[in-house]
Amino acid sequence: MGLLFSHDTLPQRVLFGTGKAAEHLAAEVAAFGATRVMMIAGRRDANTAAGLSARLPVVLHYSDIVQHVPIESAARARAAAREHRVDLLVCLGGGSAVGLAKAVALDTGLPVIAIPTTYAGSEATNVWGLTEDGRKKTGVDARVLPATVIYDAQLSLSLPSGLSVASGLNAMAHCIDSLWGPRADPINAALAAEGIRALATGLPAITDDPAGIEGREQALYGAYLSAVAFASAGSGLHHKICHVLGGTWNMPHAQTHATVLPYVLAFNAPHAPEAESRIAAAFGSPTALEGLNALRKRLDAPRALKNYGFDAADIPEAVSLILPQVPAINPRTVTGENLTELLTAALHGTDAAGLSPVKA
Amino acid sequence: MGLLFSHDTLPQRVLFGTGKAAEHLAAEVAAFGATRVMMIAGRRDANTAAGLSARLPVVLHYSDIVQHVPIESAARARAAAREHRVDLLVCLGGGSAVGLAKAVALDTGLPVIAIPTTYAGSEATNVWGLTEDGRKKTGVDARVLPATVIYDAQLSLSLPSGLSVASGLNAMAHCIDSLWGPRADPINAALAAEGIRALATGLPAITDDPAGIEGREQALYGAYLSAVAFASAGSGLHHKICHVLGGTWNMPHAQTHATVLPYVLAFNAPHAPEAESRIAAAFGSPTALEGLNALRKRLDAPRALKNYGFDAADIPEAVSLILPQVPAINPRTVTGENLTELLTAALHGTDAAGLSPVKA
Repeated sequence: MGLLFSHDTLPQRVLFGTGKAAEHLAAEVAAFGATRVMMIAGRRDANTAAGLSARLPVVLHYSDIVQHVPIESAARARAAAREHRVDLLVCLGGGSAVGLAKAVALDTGLPVIAIPTTYAGSEATNVWGLTEDGRKKTGVDARVLPATVIYDAQLSLSLPSGLSVASGLNAMAHCIDSLWGPRADPINAALAAEGIRALATGLPAITDDPAGIEGREQALYGAYLSAVAFASAGSGLHHKICHVLGGTWNMPHAQTHATVLPYVLAFNAPHAPEAESRIAAAFGSPTALEGLNALRKRLDAPRALKNYGFDAADIPEAVSLILPQVPAINPRTVTGENLTELLTAALHGTDAAGLSPVKA
Repeated sequence: MGLLFSHDTLPQRVLFGTGKAAEHLAAEVAAFGATRVMMIAGRRDANTAAGLSARLPVVLHYSDIVQHVPIESAARARAAAREHRVDLLVCLGGGSAVGLAKAVALDTGLPVIAIPTTYAGSEATNVWGLTEDGRKKTGVDARVLPATVIYDAQLSLSLPSGLSVASGLNAMAHCIDSLWGPRADPINAALAAEGIRALATGLPAITDDPAGIEGREQALYGAYLSAVAFASAGSGLHHKICHVLGGTWNMPHAQTHATVLPYVLAFNAPHAPEAESRIAAAFGSPTALEGLNALRKRLDAPRALKNYGFDAADIPEAVSLILPQVPAINPRTVTGENLTELLTAALHGTDAAGLSPVKA
């Protein structure tokens, strides 16, 4: 089969350096010629934000951040940006801080500098999300892509080891699912493989030494690549499953992703030899599944959906909700039968290697 | 040592597909809303250009292409674009066609769609070049980066096998040198490694079967990645050496690159363990040098600078011209002594593995 793909590379500057965030931020603010900066950071990050902006023209410190960006929250932030005649948005924190900055940028066209402290990856995508009446609406717009991302592992030290693992395995799911997403292509695959390598190195180093820098650096770097690859490739089978489980049974995001991932990998990999060999090589493992499982064991990752509010009785409904969303490009044909088998194994946390590998 | 880097990702759409160039081009012209297209293609590509533009609003077919883009040539093309009120530039061919389109874009701000038929890689960079009074001036400008690149291996079938190898090894040099260029970073390295893998697969397939498509696809894909990595990382030791040899002794570009590359690799690799292991892995070879040499042997690549107009008596001058240009970041300290040793080995084509590996 020939190479056939369309790949959009998004423009972005990445500045990476431990202990360098203040210096990098000052240089970028100057490069933008900004004179009225809005600094978006949650209350927990207030001290860090103050330190970073000590010598910057910050006209507004904004900490009114709500998860999933309700439209009322976005409206307040947009009004504040207008009122203070802001000319540059800086956001510090996890997905919610970046999400709010994106919501303001979507409306105002203001440039965004993102300083992520988790592995959520939103900083590397042009996807925005707003929640209205409890429903999350997402879209794609060039204006919301942060112009610059500043990574500083020092700022991620406050993320506890357990949350680092959960967030990091979510990033790992971005990498693996991008290999068979609807817009999968070899460029995404190369970036995803590099992301897997970095996360597989970084996450165990964090659990071994939560105060160490090297593991945090590798995890941040891997999370960035995971987001670039995933934003380009789009949601594959894994994310379709997790979105249904999270949306319908309100299951915890990170734990659901961490639990489901090996089952989707075991399900698809035998039908996706190129993805299988890339993932295995990135883990430095004989097979992709062995590599992922060894990492999960090392990290003591979540193992069974039954521990997070999902029940055997829920499987038929889950199957009926997931099936219509499965990307047509998925390497293995998904049927009610084999999806039931996948969810049943994930429910009980049985060995993913035992999934029926029959070509369908 | 921690991760410390700055990486600018450039915005570009890549459309890849054999036999799809006409379809992809029509879709992009429509997406730009262009109504007055200037089609830049050499006379040898006139038929292909006519075929691609049959149903497009081409107001000017332009074939006055001169190597190295003399400023008079650029001025003529710019005047023609203005006269015909062109709103989109399409270029088909190798580095010279892309170079001319960039020269027009630099002056007019018109968007460029590039359809490369060689492995030169200019289509993936924001670097322009103009020649005045025999001196080439280069610069970087966002306006010259083609907005879209369309790769169609069918269009590269006319490139003879020998030229494909020379052009392909030039792309290989972009990949390897990007690993220790002045702005080397792990993102470039990941893309370069993918490029090495694709070129190492594609080039032997082309010499085995010059009419086959798969080798051409892999080579085009690898050449694209090589250019992205190299444009980001900047010229390393290899390119500094080759530019001096080419500029001072008027040595042939591709042959010089192909000959020098294994010596620079043997020289640097023992001092750059990360690059060494990435290159070796990309070649699927025990060491980077063994991988490159096996490929060179398979391709019957050029072996000794003495065959291309360089002489032992030229070495002292070459050393004195190269030394001041060596990037400070080069993994091995370059001295008059070890550079003389490198050039002497390349002059005679002796085994690169015999270069003194002493840490300096």
